[in-house]
Amino acid sequence: MSLYYHLFNSPFTTDLFSEENMIVTMLKVETALVRAQAEEGIIPRESADKLIELLPHMKVDSDDLRQQLSVTGTPIVGLLNQIKSQLRQRDPEMVNLIHLGATSQDIVDTATVILIADYCDWLSSKLEELKDILVGLVRRNPRSLMVGRTLGQQASLTTFGVRAAHWLGSICRSTIRLEESRTRLNKIQMGGAVGIGNSFLSSNVRHRVAENLGLENAPAWHTQRDNLVALATELGILSGSLGKIAIDIIGLSQSEVMELAEPPGLGRGVSSAMPHKRNPVLSMVIRANSQRTPFLVATMIAGLPQEQERSAGLWQAEWEVFPQIMGLVAGSMEKSIELLGGLEVRTDIMLKNIDRSNGLVFADRVMMALSRTLGKEKAFSLVSQASDRVSNQEPLMLILEELIPELSGEELKNLFEVDPVQRDAENTIREILSQYGYTL
Amino acid sequence: MSLYYHLFNSPFTTDLFSEENMIVTMLKVETALVRAQAEEGIIPRESADKLIELLPHMKVDSDDLRQQLSVTGTPIVGLLNQIKSQLRQRDPEMVNLIHLGATSQDIVDTATVILIADYCDWLSSKLEELKDILVGLVRRNPRSLMVGRTLGQQASLTTFGVRAAHWLGSICRSTIRLEESRTRLNKIQMGGAVGIGNSFLSSNVRHRVAENLGLENAPAWHTQRDNLVALATELGILSGSLGKIAIDIIGLSQSEVMELAEPPGLGRGVSSAMPHKRNPVLSMVIRANSQRTPFLVATMIAGLPQEQERSAGLWQAEWEVFPQIMGLVAGSMEKSIELLGGLEVRTDIMLKNIDRSNGLVFADRVMMALSRTLGKEKAFSLVSQASDRVSNQEPLMLILEELIPELSGEELKNLFEVDPVQRDAENTIREILSQYGYTL
Amino acid sequence: MSLYYHLFNSPFTTDLFSEENMIVTMLKVETALVRAQAEEGIIPRESADKLIELLPHMKVDSDDLRQQLSVTGTPIVGLLNQIKSQLRQRDPEMVNLIHLGATSQDIVDTATVILIADYCDWLSSKLEELKDILVGLVRRNPRSLMVGRTLGQQASLTTFGVRAAHWLGSICRSTIRLEESRTRLNKIQMGGAVGIGNSFLSSNVRHRVAENLGLENAPAWHTQRDNLVALATELGILSGSLGKIAIDIIGLSQSEVMELAEPPGLGRGVSSAMPHKRNPVLSMVIRANSQRTPFLVATMIAGLPQEQERSAGLWQAEWEVFPQIMGLVAGSMEKSIELLGGLEVRTDIMLKNIDRSNGLVFADRVMMALSRTLGKEKAFSLVSQASDRVSNQEPLMLILEELIPELSGEELKNLFEVDPVQRDAENTIREILSQYGYTL
Amino acid sequence: MSLYYHLFNSPFTTDLFSEENMIVTMLKVETALVRAQAEEGIIPRESADKLIELLPHMKVDSDDLRQQLSVTGTPIVGLLNQIKSQLRQRDPEMVNLIHLGATSQDIVDTATVILIADYCDWLSSKLEELKDILVGLVRRNPRSLMVGRTLGQQASLTTFGVRAAHWLGSICRSTIRLEESRTRLNKIQMGGAVGIGNSFLSSNVRHRVAENLGLENAPAWHTQRDNLVALATELGILSGSLGKIAIDIIGLSQSEVMELAEPPGLGRGVSSAMPHKRNPVLSMVIRANSQRTPFLVATMIAGLPQEQERSAGLWQAEWEVFPQIMGLVAGSMEKSIELLGGLEVRTDIMLKNIDRSNGLVFADRVMMALSRTLGKEKAFSLVSQASDRVSNQEPLMLILEELIPELSGEELKNLFEVDPVQRDAENTIREILSQYGYTL
Repeated sequence: MSLYYHLFNSPFTTDLFSEENMIVTMLKVETALVRAQAEEGIIPRESADKLIELLPHMKVDSDDLRQQLSVTGTPIVGLLNQIKSQLRQRDPEMVNLIHLGATSQDIVDTATVILIADYCDWLSSKLEELKDILVGLVRRNPRSLMVGRTLGQQASLTTFGVRAAHWLGSICRSTIRLEESRTRLNKIQMGGAVGIGNSFLSSNVRHRVAENLGLENAPAWHTQRDNLVALATELGILSGSLGKIAIDIIGLSQSEVMELAEPPGLGRGVSSAMPHKRNPVLSMVIRANSQRTPFLVATMIAGLPQEQERSAGLWQAEWEVFPQIMGLVAGSMEKSIELLGGLEVRTDIMLKNIDRSNGLVFADRVMMALSRTLGKEKAFSLVSQASDRVSNQEPLMLILEELIPELSGEELKNLFEVDPVQRDAENTIREILSQYGYTL
Repeated sequence: MSLYYHLFNSPFTTDLFSEENMIVTMLKVETALVRAQAEEGIIPRESADKLIELLPHMKVDSDDLRQQLSVTGTPIVGLLNQIKSQLRQRDPEMVNLIHLGATSQDIVDTATVILIADYCDWLSSKLEELKDILVGLVRRNPRSLMVGRTLGQQASLTTFGVRAAHWLGSICRSTIRLEESRTRLNKIQMGGAVGIGNSFLSSNVRHRVAENLGLENAPAWHTQRDNLVALATELGILSGSLGKIAIDIIGLSQSEVMELAEPPGLGRGVSSAMPHKRNPVLSMVIRANSQRTPFLVATMIAGLPQEQERSAGLWQAEWEVFPQIMGLVAGSMEKSIELLGGLEVRTDIMLKNIDRSNGLVFADRVMMALSRTLGKEKAFSLVSQASDRVSNQEPLMLILEELIPELSGEELKNLFEVDPVQRDAENTIREILSQYGYTL
Repeated sequence: MSLYYHLFNSPFTTDLFSEENMIVTMLKVETALVRAQAEEGIIPRESADKLIELLPHMKVDSDDLRQQLSVTGTPIVGLLNQIKSQLRQRDPEMVNLIHLGATSQDIVDTATVILIADYCDWLSSKLEELKDILVGLVRRNPRSLMVGRTLGQQASLTTFGVRAAHWLGSICRSTIRLEESRTRLNKIQMGGAVGIGNSFLSSNVRHRVAENLGLENAPAWHTQRDNLVALATELGILSGSLGKIAIDIIGLSQSEVMELAEPPGLGRGVSSAMPHKRNPVLSMVIRANSQRTPFLVATMIAGLPQEQERSAGLWQAEWEVFPQIMGLVAGSMEKSIELLGGLEVRTDIMLKNIDRSNGLVFADRVMMALSRTLGKEKAFSLVSQASDRVSNQEPLMLILEELIPELSGEELKNLFEVDPVQRDAENTIREILSQYGYTL
Repeated sequence: MSLYYHLFNSPFTTDLFSEENMIVTMLKVETALVRAQAEEGIIPRESADKLIELLPHMKVDSDDLRQQLSVTGTPIVGLLNQIKSQLRQRDPEMVNLIHLGATSQDIVDTATVILIADYCDWLSSKLEELKDILVGLVRRNPRSLMVGRTLGQQASLTTFGVRAAHWLGSICRSTIRLEESRTRLNKIQMGGAVGIGNSFLSSNVRHRVAENLGLENAPAWHTQRDNLVALATELGILSGSLGKIAIDIIGLSQSEVMELAEPPGLGRGVSSAMPHKRNPVLSMVIRANSQRTPFLVATMIAGLPQEQERSAGLWQAEWEVFPQIMGLVAGSMEKSIELLGGLEVRTDIMLKNIDRSNGLVFADRVMMALSRTLGKEKAFSLVSQASDRVSNQEPLMLILEELIPELSGEELKNLFEVDPVQRDAENTIREILSQYGYTL
């Protein structure tokens, strides 16, 4: 495991996809199969019961397992070999009762689905945590004025609450879509050699296996991986939405902007060369992850055309990649919670930055207001001319006063009112919140 | 447009995303905005009505539009300039009524959503067509025995109906998920400069714009593109599932297998060098497309972290890519309908290929049957030994007869019965069909 | 061709890869083959000469060609059919002399190599143009102080000349690597059905074909595409390096930074909503392209494992993708030349931004200077403390004066000297320039 | 580390990129810097010498390092903290002499370059090993006839030696390009905070650091990563070329083809469900890796546009990805050596498969021969007709005899001679071998 691994990933997924936990989960699947076959009377109850009790306690030698994996190309053959040699010493009959009718892919895929279910449970709770934090940010800042920026340029006024509401919206949509995707995937894989089952894998047996494992029964999906890939793409989208938050924060915490700052903390973001630096390292990690996940997700999509009843390579290409996606998304979620939970929102600097624009960020609203009397064409042209002349010495208001002498002082002042901005912002926020069951 | 373009794409999308149709659609959005503002009494009704009537008939000079696009980086500024100069000659007042409160992205994105809706309608009908064809293939072949193949090796028996049912399943799931995704995207973009609306883009106005266009109202989603990307990923998954069908057909129509053949036709798949060749060109195109789409979809996912209120580059990177995805998927759909609609299923050769295995494709079922009396360990070991000796001269049955002398002739014959295979296959098919509301 | 196409691509590649030019080039290859075979005495000289004269003037019906392409999956069968039916009317003998021994892929790939060679010639000259512009930027600004920024934070001083020199360095390296790559690809494809040649494609014939076309002779590389892919990756790297320039300029032309500005021009970067906006649209396009190219390049890399003597799909997946890469890179090159050729370098604002940091951008150099007397540990700690207190009211110098009373006024002032920065910068620039044969 | 990791990767890279070895390498760089500064008289020689001796023996606490990495976003700050606290107890002066003038990226990147150099050395020797094996395959099989296959269809005759020679050619080209790429990357990174050096990082110091580490001196390349990315793309191409070999072997070892077989071995490729299976697991792994590497390489390309003097995220996105590329390529190399070193080439089955085509694989050569007397048009048409009628009962030769009665028995037989094929094949092989300095 690389030195850097822990920066980008989460301890939760490190444990979840540890060799140990994967083996435990595979044995859980083999056990559920034995139990199902015993319940259906296909194998002798007594021996099965003993086996069910023993299976979770089998010792597995990692080195041997890896060695056999590299020879057979599947983790199951080696795993079964180890188990059988232990069982053989106790009761040779039990050896005959394991893995009856199943193929390696049945065990590997069902175990993966179980791990994914655990992951999705964890992710759900993290998503709730993140949404709570974001709702808080929105509620505290509905009218906190800030400059809206397009293509890197100061554009027009908005509020920080709107930005946070958009972040929230993306997380809410991800929550909904992820819930759908995980539900669709929540199925056993239990098809035998070529996926049509057999006398040991009757419909009843499969039904019981599913029940034993808390999953749904389903026809085999050995080379029909769309449900899996659909979940992967949703994780990729979540990673991208977190990346959007990160890139926003990186942009707004630039030295020249400083409207946001990552949560302070001892040593947070210090540099080995520059004593004054406070690097936005949480955002940096989230962004780095969002840079990598699209490619991993694409690997999953590219793996869909799996030939015939089992692919020589495309299925196996998923084995490391899907856990990597889950690991990076988990890492990004944890960092996002930390980042947004302690985010410094510098509303004072937001106001200062508005002032520094010398009125330019009011230009489009001023233009629209003037449109009502002058017509849009003339208004656009006048404000455009005025904007070109704006400087520290001559803010927009002053220039307009000169260019449009017929405006009264009151009218001129009204053009630069921020109240309409805040009202529009609040309306936008309310619309977003209400879509997801929140109130302001 | 490259020489090759038409091989991979569909005339439908060529027209849909033609310069002409895009301009028409953008004007439709501008028109809907004018109408909405007139209905809300924000702009004078009479001039608006004249404008509404004129807008769809504006002449647009392509060369000038491209020129202005490259100067301003948005198609809207140039489009408006052209329209305004035409209107100015008729009624200067009208000029003031266009594009009030809106920003370029509002028009571009809403137009894109409209085009996508048209695309999804078309795709839906194509999906239904394809499903009908696939259901036919399933129903005609539930018991058509064929070799199941894993990792390129003959594995165990299945039927062609199962394979076709799996293909069908993937298309049914895509249909469902695509329907959800398109519904979620079906929203106007109408937020003004930084997305919070303004006096010309009140909640009421936006509501009416949506209604005028047959879309849903929604808060602006300028830099929250997850719904768009989610649709893109679904198209990528569909492309992959079609690619799975194609790769299966390429594999099964190899000279050495020949169980399937692309629909015959004058000159279909002929070679410039080899007089005897009949290349699987429909599958080839579908596969080529499924090779490209994951990367295009990933471009969309990678574009999610769009900075602040409008990205300098990531939004624009979508412009060509999303239509390319739609074009390739449309091409693959048309080719798939042609391919599967005329697919030759050579059940006789399927049976011959089963015979050629000298019984090896029965090995796992034989082993399972023997497990009941010998125990799985012994059965696996015996069949494994026997398999190693199988040859044209000595089929599996003969060797087993020798290795397990206690088997009666009747028992031996039963081991090689195909009826259980067909029963398991039919059950599998029924399970798949019933998931999607079909019967066998 | 989409409305947006022209924004991202270049007219040069539009013409180069036009249907018309591709057909002309394919005919050029067929002609070279006829000539070679005549020269070798394999086909009758006289008929061959007539054919050679006629071939370039054949009329090709696009609609028919596309139709046949979609039936046969190759452009050559249809092309030959059209030509033959024209020749048949003149001299039936000539019909027998075309495409002797060759396979479709031979013609398609060789034509592609020819087009790529034309492209690389064009690209070379554009690279030279770009390098000249960049050298100019470097030479005009070796000592133009600016803030260096890391992770979005003001870090330490550098000069704009250094930045430009780095941009130049990347373009110089691309030039060198591209030259190597193109040279390696400059080979005919002429292997016949399965690549080993035949009596019509003797070694001598192939040698002459190569000579006729100004390419190298080489064994067929039908499914060995690494030289092609290597060129694609180099184009991807160039696109990324141009993207680096673009992202730098987008960052430095932000409203809050304004140290650089895109070349001004009538209507350049105007907004449809905001009268004061000047969007960095050239950088935006270059960045958008650099966002897309990695995925297109990856499609090429992913296409390397082409099965057996010709792939069913992977080869064809290159057909649109490679020209797309070339088109986007060409577009980016043209935009980069325009962008950098007219780039506004606002050295006055660069200085102002340095001042605005209140000395913080000197922190690391101050720390290093103090290290010499205080030791690094103490110096780092002191400057770190000082930095935390810096504000508009209290610049770093003032705080240090207080914290380190033993510093004389002279010593203190020396800590904030910019001359060493400029010296280091000039040295760096000289090192970079000298690597590529330039002087300052 | 996942259960599957060891299947796809190599123990060599596991060790090379272990946390331990990375730390050792980073300390090596810090040491080289201290030595260089002492040699230049910038820091006191005596203390430096003590420090140089101590540095390699510093104890590093992994948990603390990871903890600090996640706080500071760089491994160097934490590493230095640990070292300093150990040094402080021995000699406070030494603490002041570490990491003078350098920034974290200097250490991380230089250490990475060192590890890459070690990797490239290892890879070179593996490439030589692989080439030797391939040359052997070529030399043993120059005339071993086999069916050439295009688009999955039997096309025309070739020999296995040609195939192996093409595999060899791709490995030779990769060797050459990799050598160039690694040489270009072999440079220190030592630029200080913003890359222009400083009083502690004079040109002389940097020169000595490079010398101490066996690397080249060079200006800093903090955000100019093209040399690194170029090496990554070369590794991606190598992975693709190995994937081509793998996909060929998977195709040729299909049950229906069986012309090649993976090296036999106890338990190699056994299945948990099917007693008769021998799965091509080595090819499967190599193919799986070649499926993943294009996406990882694309992540590197997409990371090129690193903003300003250090990117917030794009640089960090490389940290895990580049080692992953190297790990997968190393795994593929080892598997390829094992695979090709023991590859079973079943020349008898190759001949049988030729026979099974009933003469169809001679069709294009027959057509060409007939062209000489009948003209190509007539010959193509005749052979095309004949091919359509070919069956087990009626091989091509018989049908041609009937269709072209004027052919003498001798002439007919000559059409199906294999000697010209073998001659063409040998010529092709010789051309390929001679390009890379081999003889047949």
